[in-house]
Amino acid sequence: MAVINSPTNFRVLQWAKLKQKIQRDKSKQFIAEGYHCLAEASKANCLLETISTESGAPFGVSHHQVSYDVLAKLSSMATPAKMLGICKMQPARSPGEKILLIDQVHHPGNLGTIIRNGVAFCVDTIVTHASVDIYNPKVVQASQGMVFHLNIMKKPLRDYITEIKAQGYQIIGTDVRDGMPLQKARAASKHALLLGSEGDGVGEDLLSLCDIKVHIPMHPLCESLNVGVAAGILLYGLRREC
Amino acid sequence: MAVINSPTNFRVLQWAKLKQKIQRDKSKQFIAEGYHCLAEASKANCLLETISTESGAPFGVSHHQVSYDVLAKLSSMATPAKMLGICKMQPARSPGEKILLIDQVHHPGNLGTIIRNGVAFCVDTIVTHASVDIYNPKVVQASQGMVFHLNIMKKPLRDYITEIKAQGYQIIGTDVRDGMPLQKARAASKHALLLGSEGDGVGEDLLSLCDIKVHIPMHPLCESLNVGVAAGILLYGLRREC
Repeated sequence: MAVINSPTNFRVLQWAKLKQKIQRDKSKQFIAEGYHCLAEASKANCLLETISTESGAPFGVSHHQVSYDVLAKLSSMATPAKMLGICKMQPARSPGEKILLIDQVHHPGNLGTIIRNGVAFCVDTIVTHASVDIYNPKVVQASQGMVFHLNIMKKPLRDYITEIKAQGYQIIGTDVRDGMPLQKARAASKHALLLGSEGDGVGEDLLSLCDIKVHIPMHPLCESLNVGVAAGILLYGLRREC
Repeated sequence: MAVINSPTNFRVLQWAKLKQKIQRDKSKQFIAEGYHCLAEASKANCLLETISTESGAPFGVSHHQVSYDVLAKLSSMATPAKMLGICKMQPARSPGEKILLIDQVHHPGNLGTIIRNGVAFCVDTIVTHASVDIYNPKVVQASQGMVFHLNIMKKPLRDYITEIKAQGYQIIGTDVRDGMPLQKARAASKHALLLGSEGDGVGEDLLSLCDIKVHIPMHPLCESLNVGVAAGILLYGLRREC
């Protein structure tokens, strides 16, 4: 197959559109970067096409050999990965037993880390609202491709919390002021953990809907943890066998 | 006091040298960025001078008003913080009861996050080897200024582990292959937790010196956690009252 050398090639322009959220939402497709991420996409049957400066189709899907300039145009990283992939979003399925609710997490690295933690600790579904787009290439990369293994929804959290409470889910909020220490908290078999923004944590409006509130005990010199780290500790502390 | 407008001003050139590790090591000084970091430096009596585009000396130390160009020259961030500070390194003191040993952690954000976790979970001393410089401005910033609240040493870990083992410290290594599950591990009152590189974890040579080895149980789909997250979970799991 011919090498695509021109950054203005029709196909390249179509792929490059996926760097924009609006186009990802419309096409239900997104870009993943790096061999490791694409291997996870392939495992989850989400990989549609691969793109690199080399020939060969390591994942058995349609492969396009391109110039470095084309690769750089499609990449969102300072140094493009050697291989990119076009991936499809999966339709949302039923939420399972363990849900992560994410409100206003804006840093791609933090959301990616939270997703990676989610898979490590057997989360079934992640629901985001007013956060960085979960299909942003930097989120996908920071998740180390774990985004392909979660059920993903985007919706306003107030209504969704009300809906799942009615279905018997326990809602666990994080509150540094009057939460119980994490080691005392017990998660129900069906539960949703609610995490808020990097700066302000979970807002009062959502906290008021929580069944229990927890905090991670820490030395007073340290005001807070990074939200990705806090997510990891909370999921570890609340884990059940899985 | 006159505003310093020129990026080639003698004083500016002296400060800018602190962006290099070799100069930091020589002068025992380093740059911290942002009001929050400087507040922590001030609490720890490490703040020597402040620099910003505004007048006023909010921390009661010598203050220099500079142009934006000068500030940008001194900053290591894509967008410079509004205020920078020149800080002094503190001499190493005795290590206390809880030590964190860091081998080959290369990403500034990860080392900064580990430091922040360290203060949160009452670590006394951090010892780094073959890692990104702990006084790198990006590490200092990612630590949220918590670097000012730890006793810091840099030294080869093999010899240091041998030394503290002889002093009765329990050495706890992390090993995804044959470590015990974290929830079963018990830390002695005097202990050192050993963390290895982002890609490869702790090397065999150091692991062989450990008294116990632990791992964080996780779903097989997820190969590993971010090292900053892993540090947080391990410190939480091994914590004692502090």
